[in-house]
Amino acid sequence: MPGMKNTWYLPPIGSPKFSIPTPALLIDRAAMESNLECMADFFRHRSAKLRPHFKTHKSPQLALLQIEMGAIGMTCAKLSEAEVLAEAGVENILIANQVVDLRKMIRLAELARGTQIIVAVDQETNLHQIAEAAHEAGSIVGIVIEVDVGMGRCGVPPGEACLPLARLAAQLPGVHFAGLLGYEGHTVFEIDPHRRQENAFQAMTKLTGTADLLRSHGLEVEIVSAGGTGTAFLSGDFPGVTEIEAGSYPFMDVKYNQLGLPFRQALTLQATVISTPSPQRAIIDAGMKALTTDNGLPVVAGLPGVKLLRLSEEHGLLEVDPEQARFQPGDRIEIIPSHVCTTVNLHDRYIVMQDEKVQEIWTISGRGRFY
Amino acid sequence: MPGMKNTWYLPPIGSPKFSIPTPALLIDRAAMESNLECMADFFRHRSAKLRPHFKTHKSPQLALLQIEMGAIGMTCAKLSEAEVLAEAGVENILIANQVVDLRKMIRLAELARGTQIIVAVDQETNLHQIAEAAHEAGSIVGIVIEVDVGMGRCGVPPGEACLPLARLAAQLPGVHFAGLLGYEGHTVFEIDPHRRQENAFQAMTKLTGTADLLRSHGLEVEIVSAGGTGTAFLSGDFPGVTEIEAGSYPFMDVKYNQLGLPFRQALTLQATVISTPSPQRAIIDAGMKALTTDNGLPVVAGLPGVKLLRLSEEHGLLEVDPEQARFQPGDRIEIIPSHVCTTVNLHDRYIVMQDEKVQEIWTISGRGRFY
Repeated sequence: MPGMKNTWYLPPIGSPKFSIPTPALLIDRAAMESNLECMADFFRHRSAKLRPHFKTHKSPQLALLQIEMGAIGMTCAKLSEAEVLAEAGVENILIANQVVDLRKMIRLAELARGTQIIVAVDQETNLHQIAEAAHEAGSIVGIVIEVDVGMGRCGVPPGEACLPLARLAAQLPGVHFAGLLGYEGHTVFEIDPHRRQENAFQAMTKLTGTADLLRSHGLEVEIVSAGGTGTAFLSGDFPGVTEIEAGSYPFMDVKYNQLGLPFRQALTLQATVISTPSPQRAIIDAGMKALTTDNGLPVVAGLPGVKLLRLSEEHGLLEVDPEQARFQPGDRIEIIPSHVCTTVNLHDRYIVMQDEKVQEIWTISGRGRFY
Repeated sequence: MPGMKNTWYLPPIGSPKFSIPTPALLIDRAAMESNLECMADFFRHRSAKLRPHFKTHKSPQLALLQIEMGAIGMTCAKLSEAEVLAEAGVENILIANQVVDLRKMIRLAELARGTQIIVAVDQETNLHQIAEAAHEAGSIVGIVIEVDVGMGRCGVPPGEACLPLARLAAQLPGVHFAGLLGYEGHTVFEIDPHRRQENAFQAMTKLTGTADLLRSHGLEVEIVSAGGTGTAFLSGDFPGVTEIEAGSYPFMDVKYNQLGLPFRQALTLQATVISTPSPQRAIIDAGMKALTTDNGLPVVAGLPGVKLLRLSEEHGLLEVDPEQARFQPGDRIEIIPSHVCTTVNLHDRYIVMQDEKVQEIWTISGRGRFY
């Protein structure tokens, strides 16, 4: 009986939309494939290649699909995400973040025995420790120097400051100096397309200029990694950038939809109306444990006169114009997440929908893998 | 190897604080037990009893500990949480929320075969459907009518409006009319203690008045359920209230700590410094995937001159006064969540600490159980 109960909340394959236990994340397969194809197409005949970010979708199935469509490997944010990807068979993984704990470095070095692993570094001691761990494990860890190209988070300043670290990475046993990483996160959401382009180009000038500087000192720089969904077509077209780390484009969200990018909304949260205290108010079964608000409130999809007013932990409050909509308990609605990455991180699975029917269920194996 | 890797991120029992892979939620066992004891003590000689809310800690181990210390059962927010509690052996479970989907009602009715289940109802059709599902399953589901005591979310208005539903619940086969539920959520965080008491008493007057009204019509009202951590000592002392649903008191958080309650902070997030770009700035490995911001920013614990300035997905930015603190990569810090319930929902496990050593690891089995 417990075993049986554990799968009761999974809708049978082929079942219709309204039979899915909610709250549930639905992928519109056609829209998602159109997004994957659009991005793959951009990189098909360019020198820069796509290495999509796992942090958004956290699904090994989708990662393998991205690789099948031309991606050169995956980017991820944490070591534990890299472990999930390696276990799923992804062979080339860039951890776009520092791994500093000694126990984590041992995991990193072990992982690099069977998989090509590249990790971001911005500090000398950390580089020495990673090299030592890899040397002891008999593996080689790829190193990209993280350059702060304007975001003001981690990273070494562009230019000369990167030279000692790069030289050290090129000399130490256990590591291989692979190149540079610089994320223009300060401008990926810039709504003005001209300003977005200007900011991205400024950042990429710093990054590729640093790469050229290292080359002028005899260092080989294979990887120059940058970009997010908002700047993929800009930084991805900038001479000298070799790979782009976009994450959100397969699904999109309220915030990215403001940029006018050629990607369709492919992910929604299905919720059920559980109470209708008045014609002007309806309560749904999705709150802050199924939807995030760090980019503002999510938006109700395709229902004029219906607005999500607030979320509590397990409830959402809808304001309803009774002239335009009328609800009763049991009705389903769909909601567009305001921030796809943090929303996905709340869920254990995607319900993949094709022709309004459940086609597949994908486990979000990277969920909660922040360690 | 994959099997081995799966437990690499679990610190060995007995290991010291700094050896825990971060970000990780740490329970200070002594502080938590003091909180459990303080709340249990309040209810020991009162007519109202404690039925703690599972939505906060989502840990079956902790639920069983609460019951061992005198709680009469557990409250939870969702059917899937009730399933986790039942599987852990909790025998008396109140779902303080509507369960409206037909498939969920079948799960509910099945669950009630082996466990005493009580569910909130605020609408007639829903009550009929639950009764039918339970009748078919050969079980009895307890019913509490949810009363809107001022929060403006789900629920029937207090007074006469509850009578038809209560009568129906008392008549239908498959269900048992158990009483009323009313959550004074609009005032649990009120900082002014007098206003908090006034609001709570107003809400409880409506709730217990409705119970009396039903009794005057010959209905038996066993359960009058209310309360949160902020009002447990107020509503729990109000004549006619029979049980209190407080959730946050075992752990506490930044928001609840403002109320001057006799509970200690017992939960922190341990994070590691991963980058120190300048003496005024340090970056930690915890962002919005490990900490929530729906109640504002979390707060760094016990480090003067160190302030959490912002969170991105996997990074936290600390502002550091170099006169008071100095960091290097690898240093650990602890952070007090601003909202314990949504923060816990991001994590798979607690590291239970006693005397600064890992004593136990508890799985957060209710995490993500919002369906």
